[in-house]
Amino acid sequence: MPAPVILLPLTSEEAKDFFPPPVQGKLDALPVRQLPIPLPLNDSSSWKSILQEHRPEILLCAWGCPPLPEDLPVGQTGQLRYVAYLAGSVKKLVPRKLIENGLLVTNWGNAISRTISECGLLLILTAMRRAGYWNVAMHRDGGWKDGMKTVTQSLFCRSVGLHGFGAIAQEMIPLLRPFHVSISAFSPSVPDSVFQKYGVARSPSLEHLFTEHDIIVELAPYTPKNHHIVTEKLLRSIQPGGAFINIGRGPVVDEGALIRVARDRLNDLQIGLDVYETEPLPKDSPLRGIPNIALLPHIAGPTKDRRQDTASFAIENLSRFLQGQPLESQITLDVYDRAT
Amino acid sequence: MPAPVILLPLTSEEAKDFFPPPVQGKLDALPVRQLPIPLPLNDSSSWKSILQEHRPEILLCAWGCPPLPEDLPVGQTGQLRYVAYLAGSVKKLVPRKLIENGLLVTNWGNAISRTISECGLLLILTAMRRAGYWNVAMHRDGGWKDGMKTVTQSLFCRSVGLHGFGAIAQEMIPLLRPFHVSISAFSPSVPDSVFQKYGVARSPSLEHLFTEHDIIVELAPYTPKNHHIVTEKLLRSIQPGGAFINIGRGPVVDEGALIRVARDRLNDLQIGLDVYETEPLPKDSPLRGIPNIALLPHIAGPTKDRRQDTASFAIENLSRFLQGQPLESQITLDVYDRAT
Repeated sequence: MPAPVILLPLTSEEAKDFFPPPVQGKLDALPVRQLPIPLPLNDSSSWKSILQEHRPEILLCAWGCPPLPEDLPVGQTGQLRYVAYLAGSVKKLVPRKLIENGLLVTNWGNAISRTISECGLLLILTAMRRAGYWNVAMHRDGGWKDGMKTVTQSLFCRSVGLHGFGAIAQEMIPLLRPFHVSISAFSPSVPDSVFQKYGVARSPSLEHLFTEHDIIVELAPYTPKNHHIVTEKLLRSIQPGGAFINIGRGPVVDEGALIRVARDRLNDLQIGLDVYETEPLPKDSPLRGIPNIALLPHIAGPTKDRRQDTASFAIENLSRFLQGQPLESQITLDVYDRAT
Repeated sequence: MPAPVILLPLTSEEAKDFFPPPVQGKLDALPVRQLPIPLPLNDSSSWKSILQEHRPEILLCAWGCPPLPEDLPVGQTGQLRYVAYLAGSVKKLVPRKLIENGLLVTNWGNAISRTISECGLLLILTAMRRAGYWNVAMHRDGGWKDGMKTVTQSLFCRSVGLHGFGAIAQEMIPLLRPFHVSISAFSPSVPDSVFQKYGVARSPSLEHLFTEHDIIVELAPYTPKNHHIVTEKLLRSIQPGGAFINIGRGPVVDEGALIRVARDRLNDLQIGLDVYETEPLPKDSPLRGIPNIALLPHIAGPTKDRRQDTASFAIENLSRFLQGQPLESQITLDVYDRAT
């Protein structure tokens, strides 16, 4: 039986970012016939003919790949059976019907988690040191510190409260440990065994999390139940000198409340945000210009230089697929429908 | 023999920052008679009479303390024998002559190192993510990322080159380790045993350090030999996508060269600075406004909330003094003369 054909429709930038030589070497070690397709295509009709001509069993691709036709035959030998997507949301690429018809689909899964955790640490350190304020003041307002009066804080020996305890929160733990922090998390759905594994205390309520920790990191998933679950009352309950960081989902936080609390607590609460209720953040958003808020444009992860991690993850999944083993981070119909 | 008198001339803010209850508890456990003197004094002449009246053997103080008179009797029983200074430079507080006459003096030593290391990590993460640029762009210019084209980088799996391998560089190692980085240092004066202890490779030259590592952290002491030792050639030799961080001393770097290189390499070199050739940084410094440079106003350390660490360190030294043991971080005449 000939080795299955794997189609690799990638832009030159994607090929370079996702498959640096060491990662390409891992792909080359798999028993597949690689068929690279340089993107973009000259016209979109050629995409259909490429799929018909080469009849790939596997598709390995990223943002640049054109959508799969809804009437593509999938799921059987000699047809497309597996899409290993190198990025996050597959909704633009894969019509729901193809998954219904038996197409296997995976995405980057947790391969990007640690870069998001890294951004969380960056925003925590930024908040404690008020570095966002200082960088703006020094670049645009000729700023300099006011001697011993300038307030700076450290992460060392602080308490950190994580709202959510999934893969990203878990990846934060080793980054935080060297600072001798105490860490709790509020996540009713995560079992005790995971808390024990990471040496993290379970916070009994969101109220407890916000009132009893210096630094709150928002990482709860966005669900209807979690819409605006971070209320004005919770934000006001953060201790003086505390910090609130959101690297999760914007609409989990009542952003209007966040703006009011930030303005009322200019000197005793620092805020770091990578995500917002509306993205791109509107040019006239009141968040812009509040000095105790550090702003990033939803760049927590994955960083461009670590796209290779998602390719390595996809290659591991390919290996599982070829051996008939269960895939990691599979996009089932249930996952597909829940994705934002 | 009565317990020695320890004079504590402190402002209310100093007393609060340096001696929170757990640290005050450590001081209370020592066999000394504490004599708090609230600062500031009504007039400077009263300082001399306080010293004459109470004849302290020990002085524990910080920035707010008036200078010691040059003719103060020191070094013998019943005279001032030890000054445990809670901050850095003692030159304004202690005339050289008093050390010549046998006065023991210590300062904060390495108790502040870890907060400076923390700021180093902050500037590294900021540089990799271009967070300084983004925070300014979002606050002042209505900025938002340009989709997949936006370049972000991670510290994970990078190589870090430390110029200098003293206490601050050593404290950086545990903070960097969770990022799976490879670390080298260039520091001819530090013995192999220290490199081995921290698992850090010795870089054979400054040229090697700058060309062979992604991220360069400047931590060399400022000595006549090190003036402008970081030249334009070295800065230009940093790899594309690299970063240069200075949390050490400003004049170690040729700042004019740094400005030229930063402007020439807007997209492939990121820079993070806490120190400058001239401080405060002049309002018209060309460093202000260059988008690939993140600026902080010399706030690496110690942070206000960790002043308690320097008090704990001083109390350990006090305990050594009372037991007739050698002191840590003693300001000998040699150290005094070398201090900037």
